[in-house]
Amino acid sequence: MTISAWAAPKAKSPLEAFRYEPASLGPQDVEIHISHCGICHSDLHLINDDWGVSRYPLVPGHEIVGTVARLGRDVKHLKTGQRVGVGWQRGSCGECEYCCRGDDNLCARSEATCLGHRGGFAAAIVTDGRFAFPIPDAIESAEAAPLLCAGVTVFSPLRRHGVGQGMRAAVLGIGGLGHLGLQFAAKLGAAVTALSSTAAKREDARRFGATEFLDSSDTAAMQKARRSLDFILSTVNVDLPWGEYLKLLRPGGTLCFVGASPSNLGLRAGDLISGQKTVTGSNIGGRAMMANMLSFAAQHGVRPRIEARPMVAVNAALERVAANQARYRVVLENP
Amino acid sequence: MTISAWAAPKAKSPLEAFRYEPASLGPQDVEIHISHCGICHSDLHLINDDWGVSRYPLVPGHEIVGTVARLGRDVKHLKTGQRVGVGWQRGSCGECEYCCRGDDNLCARSEATCLGHRGGFAAAIVTDGRFAFPIPDAIESAEAAPLLCAGVTVFSPLRRHGVGQGMRAAVLGIGGLGHLGLQFAAKLGAAVTALSSTAAKREDARRFGATEFLDSSDTAAMQKARRSLDFILSTVNVDLPWGEYLKLLRPGGTLCFVGASPSNLGLRAGDLISGQKTVTGSNIGGRAMMANMLSFAAQHGVRPRIEARPMVAVNAALERVAANQARYRVVLENP
Repeated sequence: MTISAWAAPKAKSPLEAFRYEPASLGPQDVEIHISHCGICHSDLHLINDDWGVSRYPLVPGHEIVGTVARLGRDVKHLKTGQRVGVGWQRGSCGECEYCCRGDDNLCARSEATCLGHRGGFAAAIVTDGRFAFPIPDAIESAEAAPLLCAGVTVFSPLRRHGVGQGMRAAVLGIGGLGHLGLQFAAKLGAAVTALSSTAAKREDARRFGATEFLDSSDTAAMQKARRSLDFILSTVNVDLPWGEYLKLLRPGGTLCFVGASPSNLGLRAGDLISGQKTVTGSNIGGRAMMANMLSFAAQHGVRPRIEARPMVAVNAALERVAANQARYRVVLENP
Repeated sequence: MTISAWAAPKAKSPLEAFRYEPASLGPQDVEIHISHCGICHSDLHLINDDWGVSRYPLVPGHEIVGTVARLGRDVKHLKTGQRVGVGWQRGSCGECEYCCRGDDNLCARSEATCLGHRGGFAAAIVTDGRFAFPIPDAIESAEAAPLLCAGVTVFSPLRRHGVGQGMRAAVLGIGGLGHLGLQFAAKLGAAVTALSSTAAKREDARRFGATEFLDSSDTAAMQKARRSLDFILSTVNVDLPWGEYLKLLRPGGTLCFVGASPSNLGLRAGDLISGQKTVTGSNIGGRAMMANMLSFAAQHGVRPRIEARPMVAVNAALERVAANQARYRVVLENP
C-alpha cells in the first residue's frame, strides 16, 4: 500500500504532497484511516527543526483521529471500523518502572508519532495499537483531535496536582492549550482565573469557564492579585517575569509549565523557600491519563473551539497557527 | 525581673553583654530558663542585617532548650520544671487556613523568635507557650538544641515529599543542616547519597547514614549519576549550576531548597517539562511537624554532632560558624 501525506522536504519549508510505503503491519500495530488531524505548535517546531531533532521529509501531525482499517494479529482491544485517536506518543518500552506505573510518557524509550515516523497530515497511518485510544461516542471526530495532544497536556497536570473543588487555579495564556485548560479546571471544580495580556479574550475566557480575568499587562491588577492562587498552569511559550507570577501564588502554591518558555526563568531559591512554593513541568500524559481525559471530556462537555480546514489547505492553516490567529485550534479534515 | 543576654549593638558588630526587662508574662506565655542554645547561620544573617530586617540591640538565638520556670495562666499543656525547646518561630495567628491545617509556619502573621523579640543567647526567655515543645527524655539538652531549627528544617521537606523506602534521596551540603538531613533520610528508609565537594567528609557522611558519596567536583561522577535520584535536598547557601543538579534527577524527581542560594537559579522551563521535574522550597516546619520530628529523632537515634561552648565564648563560637569550621553544629551552654 501507499499512503498519501503532506511532508516538509527540508527545514522551514512549506509542506508538499508526499507518498510513502508504510512499514508492514506488526502484531501490535493498527492501520488507521485518518479523518482529522489537529495542528499543534509542536508541528511548527518540528517543521522548522527548532529542536534540532527533525529528519526530512517530515510528515507532521500528532492529533490524529480516524477509523481502524486493519489490526495486527495481537491487537485484541480494538475493532475494525472503530474510531480511535493518536497523540504525540506512539510507543514506550512497556516494561520499565514508568510504564508499569502508568507513566508511559516518562519512559526513556518513548517514541514520538512524527519523529522517526510519519505523522498524521496524511490519509492514513500505521502505528502501535497500544497508543491508539477509542474516542467516546459523545465527541465529534473534529473536536476529538485537539484533545489528543493539547487536551491531555493540560488535563494531566491539573489532575496530578489535585486541581479541583476548593482550589483557585489560573491558566496563563488563552490559546490552543489554554482554552482547554480553562474548561478542564472549571469542570474539575476549581475557581478559575484566566491570565492573559489579551483583554479581547475576556469574554471567551468566561465562556470557557473562567470566573476571573486577570490582565497580566495591568500592573495594579497583578499587584492586587498577589497571594491569591493555588495553582498556575502556564501554556505560553514566551519569556515572562516569572518572579512576579510566583508572587500571585499563595503559600504552598505551584507554577506548572506546559509551554516551553525559552530563556532562563530568573527564579531565586528565596522565591521558593519562604512560601514553600513549587515550580514544575508537565509533559503530555500516559495512556491511563489519556483515557481518563477523553472520558472526562465526553462526560463534562469539554470541547475545543476549532477552525476546520481541508487537509489540502495545510500550508495556509500552518501560517494561521504560526501567526497566533487560530481561535483556538485548527483541525485538518480529509475529504 | 531582668534577663542577662548577649546582643549585637549594631550590624556586623561582636555581641556584648546586655540586660533587658522582658514583657510581663501573658496568659499564653512561659518563662524558660535556658540551658542551651544552638548557633544557626541565620543568626549570622541577623547580626549582619543581611536581610535588612534586623533591629538593634539584637539578641540572636533560636535553637533554645531550657526548663519552664513560670507559666501564664492559660498554659495547660506544660508544667513548671519541664524541659522544652523553642525554634525559629515563636507565634502565629492561630486562626487562618494555614494555622488551622497545621502549617503554622506559612501563617502571614508568623512571628520570629529573634526578630522584634529577644532570642536565646541569654539566661532566660519569655515566649509564647504554644511554640515551646516538650523535649523527649531520650534526647540530651545540648543535642536537642540544633533539632529545633536545623532538624525541623530538613525533616519537614523529607516528610512532606514522602522520602522513605524505595526512594533514592540525596542531601547536598554536609553541614549543620545536611548532617541531620542524611540521618533523617536514612532513618526514614531512603537510599541516601551525600552530595558534597568536600571529599574529606566522605567518612562522616557514611556514619550519618549515606550509602553513596557523590563528589560534586568530579565531573565524570556527576555525569555517571545522571537520572539516578528521586529527591535532592539542597542545604547549601552558595550558587551552583542547578541545571546540572536537575540532570541527576530521575523523571518525576524533585530538587528542594532549604538553603538560600543567593542568585538566579538559571533554570529553564524545558529542564522541568521533559522529565516532569520539580523545584521547590521548604521553610522550617509547623508545630505538628516539630513534635513529629522530635519524637522521630528520639525513637530513631537521630542526633546532631555538636561542639559545645560556654555562652560567654559566644563571639569565638560565631566566628567558627562563619568560617564553616563547625563539625557540625555549635551549641552554647549556660553554666
